[in-house]
Amino acid sequence: MAPPGTTRLQRWENRAEWPLAGAALLFLGAYAVPIVDPDVPPLVHTVCSVVVVAVWVLFALDYAVRLVLADRRGEFIRRNLFDLAIIVLPLLRPLRLLRLVTLLSVLNRAGSHGLRGRVVTYVTGGTALLLICGGLAITDAERGHPDATIHNVGDGLWWAVTTMTTVGYGDTYPVTTTGRFVAVALMLGGIALLGVVTATLASWLVERVAEADDEDQAATRAQVETLTAEVRELRARVETSLATDRKT
Amino acid sequence: MAPPGTTRLQRWENRAEWPLAGAALLFLGAYAVPIVDPDVPPLVHTVCSVVVVAVWVLFALDYAVRLVLADRRGEFIRRNLFDLAIIVLPLLRPLRLLRLVTLLSVLNRAGSHGLRGRVVTYVTGGTALLLICGGLAITDAERGHPDATIHNVGDGLWWAVTTMTTVGYGDTYPVTTTGRFVAVALMLGGIALLGVVTATLASWLVERVAEADDEDQAATRAQVETLTAEVRELRARVETSLATDRKT
Amino acid sequence: MAPPGTTRLQRWENRAEWPLAGAALLFLGAYAVPIVDPDVPPLVHTVCSVVVVAVWVLFALDYAVRLVLADRRGEFIRRNLFDLAIIVLPLLRPLRLLRLVTLLSVLNRAGSHGLRGRVVTYVTGGTALLLICGGLAITDAERGHPDATIHNVGDGLWWAVTTMTTVGYGDTYPVTTTGRFVAVALMLGGIALLGVVTATLASWLVERVAEADDEDQAATRAQVETLTAEVRELRARVETSLATDRKT
Amino acid sequence: MAPPGTTRLQRWENRAEWPLAGAALLFLGAYAVPIVDPDVPPLVHTVCSVVVVAVWVLFALDYAVRLVLADRRGEFIRRNLFDLAIIVLPLLRPLRLLRLVTLLSVLNRAGSHGLRGRVVTYVTGGTALLLICGGLAITDAERGHPDATIHNVGDGLWWAVTTMTTVGYGDTYPVTTTGRFVAVALMLGGIALLGVVTATLASWLVERVAEADDEDQAATRAQVETLTAEVRELRARVETSLATDRKT
Repeated sequence: MAPPGTTRLQRWENRAEWPLAGAALLFLGAYAVPIVDPDVPPLVHTVCSVVVVAVWVLFALDYAVRLVLADRRGEFIRRNLFDLAIIVLPLLRPLRLLRLVTLLSVLNRAGSHGLRGRVVTYVTGGTALLLICGGLAITDAERGHPDATIHNVGDGLWWAVTTMTTVGYGDTYPVTTTGRFVAVALMLGGIALLGVVTATLASWLVERVAEADDEDQAATRAQVETLTAEVRELRARVETSLATDRKT
Repeated sequence: MAPPGTTRLQRWENRAEWPLAGAALLFLGAYAVPIVDPDVPPLVHTVCSVVVVAVWVLFALDYAVRLVLADRRGEFIRRNLFDLAIIVLPLLRPLRLLRLVTLLSVLNRAGSHGLRGRVVTYVTGGTALLLICGGLAITDAERGHPDATIHNVGDGLWWAVTTMTTVGYGDTYPVTTTGRFVAVALMLGGIALLGVVTATLASWLVERVAEADDEDQAATRAQVETLTAEVRELRARVETSLATDRKT
Repeated sequence: MAPPGTTRLQRWENRAEWPLAGAALLFLGAYAVPIVDPDVPPLVHTVCSVVVVAVWVLFALDYAVRLVLADRRGEFIRRNLFDLAIIVLPLLRPLRLLRLVTLLSVLNRAGSHGLRGRVVTYVTGGTALLLICGGLAITDAERGHPDATIHNVGDGLWWAVTTMTTVGYGDTYPVTTTGRFVAVALMLGGIALLGVVTATLASWLVERVAEADDEDQAATRAQVETLTAEVRELRARVETSLATDRKT
Repeated sequence: MAPPGTTRLQRWENRAEWPLAGAALLFLGAYAVPIVDPDVPPLVHTVCSVVVVAVWVLFALDYAVRLVLADRRGEFIRRNLFDLAIIVLPLLRPLRLLRLVTLLSVLNRAGSHGLRGRVVTYVTGGTALLLICGGLAITDAERGHPDATIHNVGDGLWWAVTTMTTVGYGDTYPVTTTGRFVAVALMLGGIALLGVVTATLASWLVERVAEADDEDQAATRAQVETLTAEVRELRARVETSLATDRKT
């Protein structure tokens, strides 16, 4: 996939990848701390807010640089709508956390082979991230509401798991509008998770069953090879015959 | 798919498509307004009722015209049972909303390529419509019942999402018979949604894995081509030999 | 599928099919009446009980006759374990209702083409039967229990739908042990339903995508045909040449 | 799969398989008894504790012996991480029960044919084990908590079923942290179950539909065979011609 002559955009993206992944992880930490412990000292709270803003600026800068370096800007924007969504909507706190997929794609690139292997890596990582971010976001949104059933991060993570697996006991559920939007994101993630698990298993089973089919095809090819050899032999014989005829 | 000599029925359907889509959207608006805000002034309420009836008349007229224009009427009725159901059952308010699939099929025709692309467009649109219509219908059905857990359109849409994703927390659930029928429609839609998401992913994975298989087949074909060239060469040689034999 | 020389067992099964289907339907009616209306007059109650027992005797007789007519009895028993389970366990009332699958298989045989068509027919019918029987059985099991949330057939059917679709709001749920066993049967049915819907869609999508693959194969076959014609022409030429050689 | 010259490691594993399976079953019994009946006499309680510890020692010894016998120890550890997890984490009681998969893999090896058959056996066994262990573990974890909704093994098993099928009524749900971890394991098991059921059905349907495709391929192969015969005939004719030419 990587062309031999890499463009300046590709070189930038390769160099920026790890720093941005680190920034995304930092963001998750800074986002998590005040939610996990709401009684954190004001200084820590301020530091976390600064980190959150700083990471946002970093991502925006990265997007701007890539846009400038891109050959065809219209196509670049169309192909990176998700990156744009992450930058443009900083006020929707839960959505901001999706920046972490940057980290995920880096991890993914490093260590997996084959299409299904990559799908499994991506889904496992994405599910874990979605659970953690969803659990944090719902706790932030619900805590403090008088009818809330989610009071701390433990409840939030438990709710995220019951939602993504579509079990939905109903012991914990969102009551705020923000919380319900977080829930919709997790439910969609859950349906995608179920779909990917099933599809990967189905693809594996179909491939195994299809292996016999491939052997049939190899047999056909072997037959064609035999036949080609036969025809070449015949042609050589005819050539010889013509040569001897000509001599006589 | 479109034959060069289009029939009068096809010309009618092409011309009627966009107006009917507009009418379906108008219907959704007129259906939604009195449910979203039950304290709407009586005049608006009356206008909405008139629009609902007018759209119904329009759809019935369209069906009648198409039936008259059809060559084989028995086959037309059999192939358009869904359209008939939408016309014949006007008293089942929630079912009436399914008319909007007309709008969907228009959107669908306009902008997507390939089978899976069309499936994804159709499912995304259908799911969104089903959620909106289900949320409106359940609010209309439940509001006012003493044991109701769904009191406004926000609750209705939230319930529709938890039902279609089969999460079902149990914080909101229908208590009226009409509401339970709406729920059954949404649950079936949810099972279909899950099925389509999974099947599309599985089909994509299977195809990617099968590409290696296709390359095998291309190799066989290339071999057969080589063999054919070999035989043609041989035949030319034999022809030459026969020609020289005859001359001598 | 039907061999020209039908055995006595097959003739019996063909002749017994429709009467047994009628008996199964009668059984469902007789089972339903006292559950739908618990205040039915004692005479009706007695008639229903008699019908239930009579249908059971009929099924047992049918099984006995088929066992006598079968060539290899060991194999017959092994291949008809489900029929045996229906006969031998008459005390497990809910399981008895599974006899109705007889009716289903008859309907199935009558009107559907292709593997996927048969699967869809079977699943739709089986789901409907499981819903109705599950709704009746749970009402019978739960009604009367002090903590019951299911009080009539309407509640029972609603609960059956929420269970089979795995939504499970929690507004209705079984509290008796019998009811929980009915629930397990419906949940398994629900998982099977979801699996079959998804698998049928996936199979359809895979087949459509594979059609291009089939065209490739047809192209290979056409090439081989061209080649065969070429070789036959060549052989005719050689034969002619040999014949003229011999003459001279 | 089994190479003719079995290593000492393989001989050990073959000999240890059945005793370890028995030990795993014993472990399940010893784990279950004090949970099913909490008022069991102190002596029985002590015996059960001893059995649980003894089985753990046995599994650890088996792992140690296999590690010593293995040729490449690094690879052995990497390929048997699951076995190691079972040994190293003895304090996480619910996880310990996963040792029973040993038993399952033995049963599996004994009696099933074909890939899908093995998948079905494995999933059915794994689901049953997960349900039983999950039901026991949740009862152990929840019973005694003031807000608990699960009070005995019957409730525990019922909760396990509603969780694995993702129905989640919400009549029973874990409130302790341990219980919630058990729940996560069961939910993951449930998603895997749904995925395997669907994937197996899809694979079966795809294979059935692909059989026509296989027939096409067989036709191609038959054609190539005809062609080969034709070419051999031709070559024989040419050889004869050359022989007669040489004689004259």
